[in-house]
Amino acid sequence: MPLSDAAHDAAYFDVASTAPLHPVARQALLAALDEGWADPARLYRSGRQARMLLDAARETVAEALGARADEITFTTSGTQAVQLGVLGALKGHRRRGAHLLHSAVEHSSVLHTAELHEANGGTVGVVPVDRLGRVTPDGYEPRPDTALAVLQTANHEVGTLQPVAEVAALLQETGVPLLVDAAQTAGRLPVPPGWSLLTASAHKWGGPAGVGVLAVRKGVRYASPLPADEREAGRVPGFVNVPAVVAAAASLRAARAEAAADQARLHALVDRIRTRVPRLVPETQVVGDPDHRLPHLVTFSCLYVDGEVLLTALDRAGFAVSSGSSCTSSTLTPSHVLAAMGVLTEGNVRVSLPTGVPEEAVDRFLEVLPGLVAEIRAPLGLDLTPATRTDSLVIDALGKLCPLPVIELAKHLTDVPVGGTITVLADDEAARHDIPAWCEMREQTYLGETPAERGSAYVIQRDR
Amino acid sequence: MPLSDAAHDAAYFDVASTAPLHPVARQALLAALDEGWADPARLYRSGRQARMLLDAARETVAEALGARADEITFTTSGTQAVQLGVLGALKGHRRRGAHLLHSAVEHSSVLHTAELHEANGGTVGVVPVDRLGRVTPDGYEPRPDTALAVLQTANHEVGTLQPVAEVAALLQETGVPLLVDAAQTAGRLPVPPGWSLLTASAHKWGGPAGVGVLAVRKGVRYASPLPADEREAGRVPGFVNVPAVVAAAASLRAARAEAAADQARLHALVDRIRTRVPRLVPETQVVGDPDHRLPHLVTFSCLYVDGEVLLTALDRAGFAVSSGSSCTSSTLTPSHVLAAMGVLTEGNVRVSLPTGVPEEAVDRFLEVLPGLVAEIRAPLGLDLTPATRTDSLVIDALGKLCPLPVIELAKHLTDVPVGGTITVLADDEAARHDIPAWCEMREQTYLGETPAERGSAYVIQRDR
Repeated sequence: MPLSDAAHDAAYFDVASTAPLHPVARQALLAALDEGWADPARLYRSGRQARMLLDAARETVAEALGARADEITFTTSGTQAVQLGVLGALKGHRRRGAHLLHSAVEHSSVLHTAELHEANGGTVGVVPVDRLGRVTPDGYEPRPDTALAVLQTANHEVGTLQPVAEVAALLQETGVPLLVDAAQTAGRLPVPPGWSLLTASAHKWGGPAGVGVLAVRKGVRYASPLPADEREAGRVPGFVNVPAVVAAAASLRAARAEAAADQARLHALVDRIRTRVPRLVPETQVVGDPDHRLPHLVTFSCLYVDGEVLLTALDRAGFAVSSGSSCTSSTLTPSHVLAAMGVLTEGNVRVSLPTGVPEEAVDRFLEVLPGLVAEIRAPLGLDLTPATRTDSLVIDALGKLCPLPVIELAKHLTDVPVGGTITVLADDEAARHDIPAWCEMREQTYLGETPAERGSAYVIQRDR
Repeated sequence: MPLSDAAHDAAYFDVASTAPLHPVARQALLAALDEGWADPARLYRSGRQARMLLDAARETVAEALGARADEITFTTSGTQAVQLGVLGALKGHRRRGAHLLHSAVEHSSVLHTAELHEANGGTVGVVPVDRLGRVTPDGYEPRPDTALAVLQTANHEVGTLQPVAEVAALLQETGVPLLVDAAQTAGRLPVPPGWSLLTASAHKWGGPAGVGVLAVRKGVRYASPLPADEREAGRVPGFVNVPAVVAAAASLRAARAEAAADQARLHALVDRIRTRVPRLVPETQVVGDPDHRLPHLVTFSCLYVDGEVLLTALDRAGFAVSSGSSCTSSTLTPSHVLAAMGVLTEGNVRVSLPTGVPEEAVDRFLEVLPGLVAEIRAPLGLDLTPATRTDSLVIDALGKLCPLPVIELAKHLTDVPVGGTITVLADDEAARHDIPAWCEMREQTYLGETPAERGSAYVIQRDR
């Protein structure tokens, strides 16, 4: 596929997916490939050398995350850290019960682990979030059989910071352990106090792929859900990838210092996007907390736009961004994060800026975005003047996928007078979230959903 | 700790633990760190590029292992490949039953996975091996409820090749799937036909750490034992380490070609060790099949020697080797492989030669070994003439660890006349294997073991 010149010079705005390898990580990796390639369990010289490098890396990561070295184990990914952390803590606390608490906006690795826990007979409680994506600490009030609670430091899709310290304080009184998923903040922000288990992923802070961190506080019961293995305190089976671990550790401190130095500037750049996008692009919703948020991440949704089409257009214009839209996910279900927040899931764009990103790149993004969105929307004919007006209208959007049902609704809103109703027939799952969210954004009244012969009927009253 | 000059120029004879990174792997890794660092699931340019590199690596590995690309998934280690392969195939075939068959000499990752399967209510059948460490295909005759059989291509401790094709043919008739653990042969020898699942580990063939292979033949039922994840055909959760996978694939073919070219020479060098060690070092047993074996691997046991002491002496002399002796394992149980073969477990040394090893390095090893063993044995006074002779003698070796009980037995053998008996009281677990094995080697009659107040009483009759 031919690529435009701009794409070859892409502005990479997706560090929340993975950060480019930090130069310090690359340097450390090369050195450790020479010095730390042997089996650290062996007694001969090269083995002892690998062991020393591994021990030093563990000390470094422990110090950076506010843990003891013997609390740190290296996994092979952040996802594995979450899976082992959740299942291992549940198994270790099975005498307490089998109830798992997690927020509705955790990473999919948490949700999928919870599903397996349920399939194995456990129970799961989901803590709701507000429209900014934040839990309230009260939501974490445990049941007598709650064996583990899980909360992220910050949301990976919308950047909202969670009240981890408050939740930890609440749980501490009850003795329920708290697993804190720090994937989005490790190497960027300080680790909040009060965790029982902590998980992180090196490639999110500029370390190499293949390294996650699972820290388990001394005294927190943990029973491995996997077959026995002597390595990594019996928690993570398999040959330890010493060179990658060394690179992960070396880059952690460097990344953290640089992120801290750039934090205020990144925060301001994201503010610029948050303020200008809704002005530059009509019918756009910026989601997540405007203040208590990751400095470098912002998400917005552009109504009537297919997220995948917008991403492709941005890619051709030289910008690499991500999307939580249903349309870009292989499962065709809308982002569970946006759905839990009750905000729009269509035409969704997540921008996560790399540390040190040039201001000009952000301005160029703001320059090209309005035109790209307008181009995508142009064929939809949203400005067509309605031909007839009746008090109620039924729109058949059956078989039409996101974002078409909402587009149809928007097109025909003014076909009924104020006070009139529109019934949208739709069988795409995304409509269930998007139509109410659109009503809220456009200040129309959503009257509810009733099952239809096929799909559902969504009823909207025009208020203005 | 100060190291001798020799140790800094160590001959690395432990490729069965991990092979040094192949130059091709290093080169490919560096290139892929630049070109394949992004998330291969993303739609923008750098993501698509990572995806293309990943797809190409999958094709390469598939071709090298005689599989289809869509049968190959990349795990994070050989151990993870085994764990997922065994548990996933068992879960996929749970309607057949919950019986798992594996040989007594499989890698510990198989044994530990079997233990977990048993703990979860499954059953396990262990197929015995002969004194050379080989299974007989008949041992794999399945029960009606056998859901999976596991067999290695070659043993990791003694190098014996297993009759995989014959076992596969036997199982094929019954429909029981066979998982073949090719960790010791992938990148060295052709893959035997007939596998249903195949596992391997890249760092054993000169690829980087952090990459294993799990191949599942089309049509073989597999149900992931882990939480759901979209990556790697739903089998291996977590961010895919594209640069390491690319390096693993690139080195696989290079390593295979070089190993094939060096095969006859390595086989002859190992023959040299197999022939000369017993001549140069008294009371030494070379174990494993002398002919049907890995070209580059040989294991022998030196009586009356602590394996860890010998390894340390060899390390100081510049040789990195491994040991299956009880004394060097952190669990303090003797090698399950040597125990299953009924051979000596003490003073055990495994030599696994790297491709291209200089002949002189092997000769130097044969030069220094006898002196080192003699030095270790010197203080034991094995040549002491016995002072008295009685028809029976009790030796108290309680509290003495391997190899002391056997040393005591050897010392005092001639204290009784031919036909007399010696009773060794010992509570070290290794004695249970080592005393009968010593009797067989020294052609003495082992009369049996009876439980004692503490430990056991092992009774030996002097025959010569």
